[in-house]
Amino acid sequence: MSRLWEIQEFGFQPDKLHHLETLFTIGNGYLGTRGSFEEGFPGESMATLINGVYDHAEGMLVPELASAPNWLPIQITVDGTPLKMVTKTSDTMLPPEGILFGYERTLHLDTGILERSVLFRAASGNVVRIIFQRFASLHDVHVLCQRVTITAIDGDPVIQVKALLDGDTLNLTANHWRVESAEILAAGDEIGIGAATRESGYTLGMASRFVSPYPATASKDGLRPQFDTSFTLPFQESAIFEKITAIYTSRDTDESPLAAAREKARQAAAEGYSLLEARHSAEWANYWDTSDIEIVGDDACQLATRFTTYHVLIAAPRHDENLSIPAKTLSGFGYKGHIFWDTELFTLPPMTLTQPDIARNLLMYRYHRLAGARHKASANGYEGAMYPWESTDTGEETTPQWSDVQPDGSKIRIWTGDHEQHISTDIAYAVDQFWRWTGDDEFMAKYGAEIILDTAKFWGSRAELHGDRYEISQQIGPDEYHENIDNSVFVNRMVVWHLEMALTLLGWLRIYSPTDAARLVKFLDLTPARLNHWRDVIARMFIPFDHEKHIHVQFPGFFEMEYIPTEKYQPRITSVQAILGHHRTIQTQVIKQADVVMLMALLGRKIGTPDETAVEQVMQNNWDTYFPRCDHGSSLSPAMHAWVAARLGMVETAYEQFDHAAHIDLMDNKGNVRDGMHAAACGGVWQAVVFGFAGLHIDERGELAVTPRLPKHWRRLSFTVNYRGEKRRFTAENPR
Amino acid sequence: MSRLWEIQEFGFQPDKLHHLETLFTIGNGYLGTRGSFEEGFPGESMATLINGVYDHAEGMLVPELASAPNWLPIQITVDGTPLKMVTKTSDTMLPPEGILFGYERTLHLDTGILERSVLFRAASGNVVRIIFQRFASLHDVHVLCQRVTITAIDGDPVIQVKALLDGDTLNLTANHWRVESAEILAAGDEIGIGAATRESGYTLGMASRFVSPYPATASKDGLRPQFDTSFTLPFQESAIFEKITAIYTSRDTDESPLAAAREKARQAAAEGYSLLEARHSAEWANYWDTSDIEIVGDDACQLATRFTTYHVLIAAPRHDENLSIPAKTLSGFGYKGHIFWDTELFTLPPMTLTQPDIARNLLMYRYHRLAGARHKASANGYEGAMYPWESTDTGEETTPQWSDVQPDGSKIRIWTGDHEQHISTDIAYAVDQFWRWTGDDEFMAKYGAEIILDTAKFWGSRAELHGDRYEISQQIGPDEYHENIDNSVFVNRMVVWHLEMALTLLGWLRIYSPTDAARLVKFLDLTPARLNHWRDVIARMFIPFDHEKHIHVQFPGFFEMEYIPTEKYQPRITSVQAILGHHRTIQTQVIKQADVVMLMALLGRKIGTPDETAVEQVMQNNWDTYFPRCDHGSSLSPAMHAWVAARLGMVETAYEQFDHAAHIDLMDNKGNVRDGMHAAACGGVWQAVVFGFAGLHIDERGELAVTPRLPKHWRRLSFTVNYRGEKRRFTAENPR
Repeated sequence: MSRLWEIQEFGFQPDKLHHLETLFTIGNGYLGTRGSFEEGFPGESMATLINGVYDHAEGMLVPELASAPNWLPIQITVDGTPLKMVTKTSDTMLPPEGILFGYERTLHLDTGILERSVLFRAASGNVVRIIFQRFASLHDVHVLCQRVTITAIDGDPVIQVKALLDGDTLNLTANHWRVESAEILAAGDEIGIGAATRESGYTLGMASRFVSPYPATASKDGLRPQFDTSFTLPFQESAIFEKITAIYTSRDTDESPLAAAREKARQAAAEGYSLLEARHSAEWANYWDTSDIEIVGDDACQLATRFTTYHVLIAAPRHDENLSIPAKTLSGFGYKGHIFWDTELFTLPPMTLTQPDIARNLLMYRYHRLAGARHKASANGYEGAMYPWESTDTGEETTPQWSDVQPDGSKIRIWTGDHEQHISTDIAYAVDQFWRWTGDDEFMAKYGAEIILDTAKFWGSRAELHGDRYEISQQIGPDEYHENIDNSVFVNRMVVWHLEMALTLLGWLRIYSPTDAARLVKFLDLTPARLNHWRDVIARMFIPFDHEKHIHVQFPGFFEMEYIPTEKYQPRITSVQAILGHHRTIQTQVIKQADVVMLMALLGRKIGTPDETAVEQVMQNNWDTYFPRCDHGSSLSPAMHAWVAARLGMVETAYEQFDHAAHIDLMDNKGNVRDGMHAAACGGVWQAVVFGFAGLHIDERGELAVTPRLPKHWRRLSFTVNYRGEKRRFTAENPR
Repeated sequence: MSRLWEIQEFGFQPDKLHHLETLFTIGNGYLGTRGSFEEGFPGESMATLINGVYDHAEGMLVPELASAPNWLPIQITVDGTPLKMVTKTSDTMLPPEGILFGYERTLHLDTGILERSVLFRAASGNVVRIIFQRFASLHDVHVLCQRVTITAIDGDPVIQVKALLDGDTLNLTANHWRVESAEILAAGDEIGIGAATRESGYTLGMASRFVSPYPATASKDGLRPQFDTSFTLPFQESAIFEKITAIYTSRDTDESPLAAAREKARQAAAEGYSLLEARHSAEWANYWDTSDIEIVGDDACQLATRFTTYHVLIAAPRHDENLSIPAKTLSGFGYKGHIFWDTELFTLPPMTLTQPDIARNLLMYRYHRLAGARHKASANGYEGAMYPWESTDTGEETTPQWSDVQPDGSKIRIWTGDHEQHISTDIAYAVDQFWRWTGDDEFMAKYGAEIILDTAKFWGSRAELHGDRYEISQQIGPDEYHENIDNSVFVNRMVVWHLEMALTLLGWLRIYSPTDAARLVKFLDLTPARLNHWRDVIARMFIPFDHEKHIHVQFPGFFEMEYIPTEKYQPRITSVQAILGHHRTIQTQVIKQADVVMLMALLGRKIGTPDETAVEQVMQNNWDTYFPRCDHGSSLSPAMHAWVAARLGMVETAYEQFDHAAHIDLMDNKGNVRDGMHAAACGGVWQAVVFGFAGLHIDERGELAVTPRLPKHWRRLSFTVNYRGEKRRFTAENPR
C-alpha cells in the first residue's frame, strides 16, 4: 500500500502553513529544506539549514544555524496571472488573481521526494496543471533537484517561468549572511551566489542551472540572479523544466565553495533530473532496506513510524564526522539548531542498530569536541571532559543563560548549561552501546575509550565526599522541572555505571590494544590512585532509595513536596507546568518526563536494589510511583514510557504512550511543530518498538534475543538490525 | 480497539467549527442536534432539526425543516469567569477571560454519546475540569439528556451553573417559530417552552428538569427560562448536574405537546441520567449488533464505515411511518431537510438489509404520500402517481424552481422538479428490494403494490409513441449536468424494468391475495387494455445502444459533444463543472455521477444487450466508456462506482472510489459538510462493501450468496444481514 508511505495534504490548508512546512521538510543530512512553496506565500517560514553552519548574530545570546540563501524560488505566470495558492475561491466568480481548483501535496517517504500538484485557472479562463517535484540528493548531498511540469488543460496559455536564487534570506529576525556575489555565470547558462556568515566566517557558494525546452535568458534583480523564459503552451501539451542547484560551504571544500558548486551544478545538470532521481531513489531504497519497521494491523502507527524514521534519516549526517543531529533536526529554527543529549539517547540508537556508519559520525562529532568539553570542565574547576548541555560547531557550551522575554516582561534564568551534567554520561552510554552492537573494537580503542575515560575523570573530580558517602549536588536530571537539586538518583546511579564502565573498558583495552591503553593512561593521567578513587566512588555513592516503599527516590525531599497526580489535569493540551506556572511546579511532585523511568530504560534490571526486594518488583514500584506523577511536558517522555511499560508487561499502557509519541509531530499535539520536528520523539518511537514491543536485547551469552509483547491489535511486527556487521531480521506475530 | 469507535477532536479547532458541528451531530431518528457547544460560540451554526417539522417562512421559495428552540444551553462561570472556548492562549499570561488548558471532544459511535472534556483556568487562577455529555435517547426518542461534571482541580472555586431553554432560534436567516410560552413550571422545578411554526402550524412543547446537588432557583430572561445555582466547590471535589429535556410536537401527540413534554421530563428526571443512559446504550448495542461492518486491516476505512453507518442510523425514523431521511440527514440546513431519491437508492438499502422495521417506515412515508404524487401526475397531465423530486411532509413537489442568487447576480433555473422523473421508479425499485430481502408479503399486498402499480400507471401514460418505438423526452437522469434530454438510457431501461415488475407483481398478487388484487385493479383502473399497453411499451421502448462499440448510450447525441477526459483535471478540489462553468459543462461529455454505471449497479446483468455480445463484455465496455468521463461532481457517485468496479473485478479501482466515498464527510473533501452530512454517500458506503466487495446477492434459487473481492490489504470483512426474518453473518478473508 503506497499510502502507508505517503504524507498527504489534499486541498491547501493555510491554517497549518508552518506545521506543514515542517512535516514536508526534505533533506539528506547535509541540509534540510522546509516544505515552503516555490512561489512563496505570505507569512511563510522558509528555511534551508545546512548542518554545522552556525553563526552568532549581533544582539543574540547564542549562535544558531544560519538559514542559507533560498534555492527554491520558481515563479510562474499563466496569461499574466501569477500562480499563487489563493485561499478563497468561489465556484462561479473569476477573481483577477486566478483560482486554485486543485491542490495536492505529497511527501513520498520511500524516496524523500516532495511533490505538489495544482490545478490553476488564470484570469483569462485558461487552465493549467502544474506539478512541482523536489529532492535533496542522497546520492550526492551537494545536489538539489527541482522539476516543474506544466500542462495546458484548457486553452493555449502564455506561460512565463522564472527560476532564481534568492540571496536575501533571514532567520526569522537575524541576518547572518553577507552576500558577496549574486551573478550570471557561464555566459548566461548558470546563476550563482557567494556569501559568508557575518560572525563565524563560513563561506558558501550556490549555483543553479536551468534546463528548459524554450530559450531562457539570465538576468539579475538585486541579490536575485534569475532565469526567465516565456512561451505559448499549446492545448493539451506539457512542458518540463528542471532546476539543478549545487551548494558547498567552506566546511566541505578547501577550494572556493562557489567554484565547487558551479562545477557540481554543471555536471549534475548535464546528467539531468531523471538520472539524478534514479540514483537518489536507489540510496533511499538502501536506507529503508535496514531502517524500515513494518507494522501490520495499525495503519496509523505504521505510517507515523515511517514518518518519524524518515525525519531521523534526513537529519543524520552520512558524509561528515563533524556533525550531529539538532534537537529539531534541520526542519526549523527551534533550539537554534543546537545539539543536546537528544542525539545520544534518542536519535542515535536507531542509527547504531540500522545505520552504524552514521552512528559512528555522530560519535566522532563528540570525539572531535573533547577540547571544548575539557575547557568547560577546567573552567568550572573540574578535571577531565565535561560536555556542554547545548553544543554547536565549536564544542563550547552554548546554552543561553536567560530565556526570551516573557509576556510579563521578565526573563527566566536557564540553569541547564550549568547543571544538567548528565550529558557527559549520556554520551559515554551511547559510545558503549555502539561498541556492544557493532563490535567496532577499533573505534573504541582509537576514539570511544578517550570519551568514556575522560568523562569518567570528570565525574571522579565532581563527586563530593560527605561523611562516609559520595554525593553529587546541584544537578538537573531529565526532569527539568526540578532544578539544582542534590543527589538525583538518575545522575548518581548513572555515574556509578559510568565509572564501572570506564574501569571495565580500561581492562579490556590493556589486552586488546596495550599501545592505546598506555597512550590514554599517560595522556589522561589515569594513575592507580585515580582508578582507586573511582572504585571508592562506585562503592560509596549515595543512591537515594526508600526502604519502606522499595522504590528509587528521584532525589531526597522529592516526596515531601506537594503531590499532584497529573491525571487530574486531563484532558490537557498544554503542560502541567504551564497550568501551575514555573514557580509552583518546582515545589510539587510533578515530573516533566521520564527520569527514574528513563533510568530503568537505560539500565533495565542492572538498576539494582540495595535490599532483598526482587529488582522486578522495585521496577514495578518505581513505575507505579512515577508514572502518575509525570506530566510528559517534554516530547521525549512518552516513547520512553512506552518502552519501559512494554518491558514491564503493561502493553496497553505502552501502546497509549507509543501512539501519543508517534503522532506528536503529525498531529502537532504540542502546538510547536512550526519550530521543527521533535527529533528525540522520532528516535524514541523507533526504540519503543524495537526495545519495547519487540524486547530486542543482547542476552548474557552475547546473542540477540527478542521478547515480543505486541499490542493486541497488531498482527505483525518486522524490522531489521545490524549486529556486529550482519543484518538480522526479526518478525513477531500475534496469535490469531 | 475502542479508538475504532471514536471520532475525536483533540485541541479545539475553531477553523473547523461548522464542519465538526456536523460530524458531531447526535440523534435518534426523531431529531438531530448538531455538535454545538452548551455555552455557545461566536458564529456557531446550532440546530436541532425535528424530522417532519417543516415550515414555509415568508420570503422563501420552499418550506424547510424548522430548527427547534435550543435545548442545549448550559452556562458556567468559575470565580466569575465565564467558561468559553478561548482560542488564543499564552503559556504564561492570565488573560481576564481565562485560559483553555485542555480540550477533547469525542463522539462515541458505539453509544451515540457526545462528550467534551475541558480544563479551564479562571482569571482567579483556580482550575476546573468540566465534562459535558449528551445524548438523544434511542430508547425513548422524546428524551434528551445532558450531564455536566465539574471538578475543582486547583483551589476552591465559586461556580455558577445556569441551565436554560432558548426560545430565540433562527434557521440561519428565517424565523419559523412563534413562541407562545416560556415559563417556570411546577413551582420552579421545571422550565418549559411552548411554540408553533408560523406557517405550517405545528405546535411544540419542550420541558426541562435540572438535577443539582445544590439548591437551584428558576427565573426567566425573555424567551429563556432558566435554572441557576451557585456554590463553592471544595478542592479536589466534583459536582454533577443533569439536565433532562423532553420534546413533543403536534406530529406525535394528540394532547398538548407541552403537557406531554412536561410529563415525560418529570418521569425521565426521576429515573435519572444513569438509568436513561443504560437503556439508551442497550438500544445502540442492539442497533450495531446487526448494522456494524467489521473491516480488519484498514483502520481508516473501518472507522469511516462505522462513522457513515452511525449517521444513517441517527437519521433513520424508527418510531414513525410518516418520516424519511433528508438528503443531509438531520445534521444541517443543506437542501432544507428535503427528501430525494437519496433515501430509496442510497440510505434505504442498508436499512432494508439490517433494520427492516426502519426500512418499512421509510417506504410507508411514500405510501402515505401517494395523494401528493397523484396530484403531481394529474397537474402535469399524466395518469397514476408521479412522486415529487423533492418531498417534505405534504408529499407535494417542493423543489425550488430557481437557485439562490449567484455571485454574478443571476439565478439559475432548476429543472429537477420538472424533469427528474426517475424518482418514481427509484421508489418502486426500493419497494421491490424490500420485498425480496424481507419476504414481507403482507406489506407488499397492502401497501407496496399500490406504489409500484400506480407509478407504473404514470409511466404508461408518460411514454410517447414515435413511429414504431416508445420514447421518453425531456428527462434528467442521475447525471444532472445534462438537463432535459430525450431518451435517457437510465430512465428508459428502468421504466421497462418498472413495467415488467408491475405485471409480475400483479400476477403474484392475484394468487397471494385476490382481494387486494381486485381492490387495486378496481381502484387504479388496471384494465386489460392498460396492462396490454404496458406490455407494448416494454416491447417497443427505445434503449439507446451503440452496436459498433457495444455500449449503452447515455442518451442520443451524448457522444457528439466535446470529449473531456476528467482525469485531465487532476488533482482537483472542486467539480469539473465549477472549472468549466455551468453552460460549457452541459455541452461536453463530462458526467456528474454514475448514470449508466448506476444502471449497472441496480440491474446487474439484467441490464441486458440488444445484440449477441456477452452482457459481461457490454458492462465492461460501459465502464471503460463512462468512468473516464465521470466528474464525481455529486457525493453520490464514488460509492456506486466502487460497487460496480468491485463487481466487475477491478478491486483496486473499487478501493480508490470506496476510500474516497468513505471519507467525504470526515475529510470534508467537498468543502460543504458545514451544511450537513452526505446521507447518500453514507448509505452508499455500506452498499459498496456489502454488494460490491462482498458481492452479496440473492441467487437464482433464492439463496443468499457472496462473491468476495476484497482489497488486497484487507484481512477480513464481516457483516450481518437480515434475510426473510433470519440474521445471517458473513465473513470473507484474504489469503495470508
